[in-house]
Amino acid sequence: MSVLIVGSTALDSIKTPKAENPRLLGGSASHAAVAASFFSPVKLVGVVGNDFPKPYIQLYKRRKIDLEGLQILPGKTFHWSGEYEINMNNRRTLLTELGVFETFTPTLPNSHQSAPFVLLANIAPSLQSHVLSQMQRPRFVVADTMDLWLNIALPDLLRLIKRLDCFVLNDSEAHQLTQTDNVFAALKQIHKLGPKYVIIKKGSHGSILSGPRGFFICPAYPLHNVVDPTGAGDSFVGAMIGCLAVAKGSVEDNIRRAMVYGAVVASFCCEGFGLQRTARLTRGQIEKRAKELQKLTRF
Amino acid sequence: MSVLIVGSTALDSIKTPKAENPRLLGGSASHAAVAASFFSPVKLVGVVGNDFPKPYIQLYKRRKIDLEGLQILPGKTFHWSGEYEINMNNRRTLLTELGVFETFTPTLPNSHQSAPFVLLANIAPSLQSHVLSQMQRPRFVVADTMDLWLNIALPDLLRLIKRLDCFVLNDSEAHQLTQTDNVFAALKQIHKLGPKYVIIKKGSHGSILSGPRGFFICPAYPLHNVVDPTGAGDSFVGAMIGCLAVAKGSVEDNIRRAMVYGAVVASFCCEGFGLQRTARLTRGQIEKRAKELQKLTRF
Repeated sequence: MSVLIVGSTALDSIKTPKAENPRLLGGSASHAAVAASFFSPVKLVGVVGNDFPKPYIQLYKRRKIDLEGLQILPGKTFHWSGEYEINMNNRRTLLTELGVFETFTPTLPNSHQSAPFVLLANIAPSLQSHVLSQMQRPRFVVADTMDLWLNIALPDLLRLIKRLDCFVLNDSEAHQLTQTDNVFAALKQIHKLGPKYVIIKKGSHGSILSGPRGFFICPAYPLHNVVDPTGAGDSFVGAMIGCLAVAKGSVEDNIRRAMVYGAVVASFCCEGFGLQRTARLTRGQIEKRAKELQKLTRF
Repeated sequence: MSVLIVGSTALDSIKTPKAENPRLLGGSASHAAVAASFFSPVKLVGVVGNDFPKPYIQLYKRRKIDLEGLQILPGKTFHWSGEYEINMNNRRTLLTELGVFETFTPTLPNSHQSAPFVLLANIAPSLQSHVLSQMQRPRFVVADTMDLWLNIALPDLLRLIKRLDCFVLNDSEAHQLTQTDNVFAALKQIHKLGPKYVIIKKGSHGSILSGPRGFFICPAYPLHNVVDPTGAGDSFVGAMIGCLAVAKGSVEDNIRRAMVYGAVVASFCCEGFGLQRTARLTRGQIEKRAKELQKLTRF
């Protein structure tokens, strides 16, 4: 089954202590769509300007991503620029140019409205809701977010969360949303906002699922060298929903394994700038790390 | 087989955002010995003053801990006082009174020198080395440490690390020792200092083993409410070595499972002040959580 993914499609200029890379393919939807494409058919919904480099369109096409929902408008592509500190955990935004994203209001093509799996990757929660309202009875809806929306659009975000099957956020966002530092107490509180499944991402410490069958502690793949963590969280959730879309059986039966595949694709994402490593991935490389990750938690 | 445990035997006055508890039974060796006692016979080596409360001696005895190596000297018992911040991760020391610990130089009773398993719980590395030098061919030697010794006794600590089978430290100590923020790169560097096994403790994020058969990612038990984390790391390593001492087969075959039991006993430790919760534990309660922890990482 196919996955509809909406989010940002952007150019990222990324500076780390070791290197600087301008105008890479980036954005939550780009990372999530490429990650999901290793598992299932993907329909991408987003907007870029007419400055968007052709090779990036070709990259989407090589990954067989359906681009009917990608608008190309006169103007500039959303451009984000950020810098990582020495430990690669803290980053600061140097510049945000919204460009054509400023007035983006996606209208879904007919063919997109019946996609059974929907990923509302990180964008303004009002846009995520706007897309969700155009969907016909999706089977499973996941949304990701970021601290910005907790700060400037919390009522919109709370309205969205009510409508989700699964809400994904990172640990600092969970602490901010619930005012508790205990991740398990936070999970309990977030369930009360609506979603049956809640996933808290903890970067190199892995992720935690809370769902009807209890918790699942998903490890991160051991990386000796993180080149650029931008998009790792988007890759995690993209690979996860791609994996769920093609799995036989219920979401409950498959979500743990899907998270492990998410962790694997996220680990590859961290090993290159932007999408450089992820785009070259093979299914065989993914399966190898998934097996290794399974072995790492056995006793 | 029995475990010899040397470390601090202290009175802890602990303040958390919710409560204050003066002069609890504490110290690295107390926590580790009680934790180990649920699995194997334990010989405790330490020193207390003649102000040491009788009920604490009785607690050791109830746990069938061999006290032949516990000196009771005229003077005051080592007293530590600390305060936790609201998130229970950061603590600051309010007061340290060394008392009889200031001149402590343990001489092991004959019966202690042949213990096959040795835990050098957190004390000055020169004392840990002094005890190790009195042992006859121990089968497996583990040491824990703290940031203080990295700051004021690094040459002593490095000399000790060379002689260990297994070195245990927390993530911030590992970063300090190796000057790297990447935990897997740190593990690799620490192996070069000598030990075949290195374990990095990450508090609520679990722990990571590096050994001849590669990494093991050990989850922490999910706790909704942390009452007092003092001694959790000591409980982890105590339960781990207790478990190893009675397991059939090689250390390599058993160390992963032993770490899971360590994580379980550490979780109980966090649910009460000082040793209040741990001291009341039953083997059944431990086994129940070990099974739960196993289930939490299955997919």
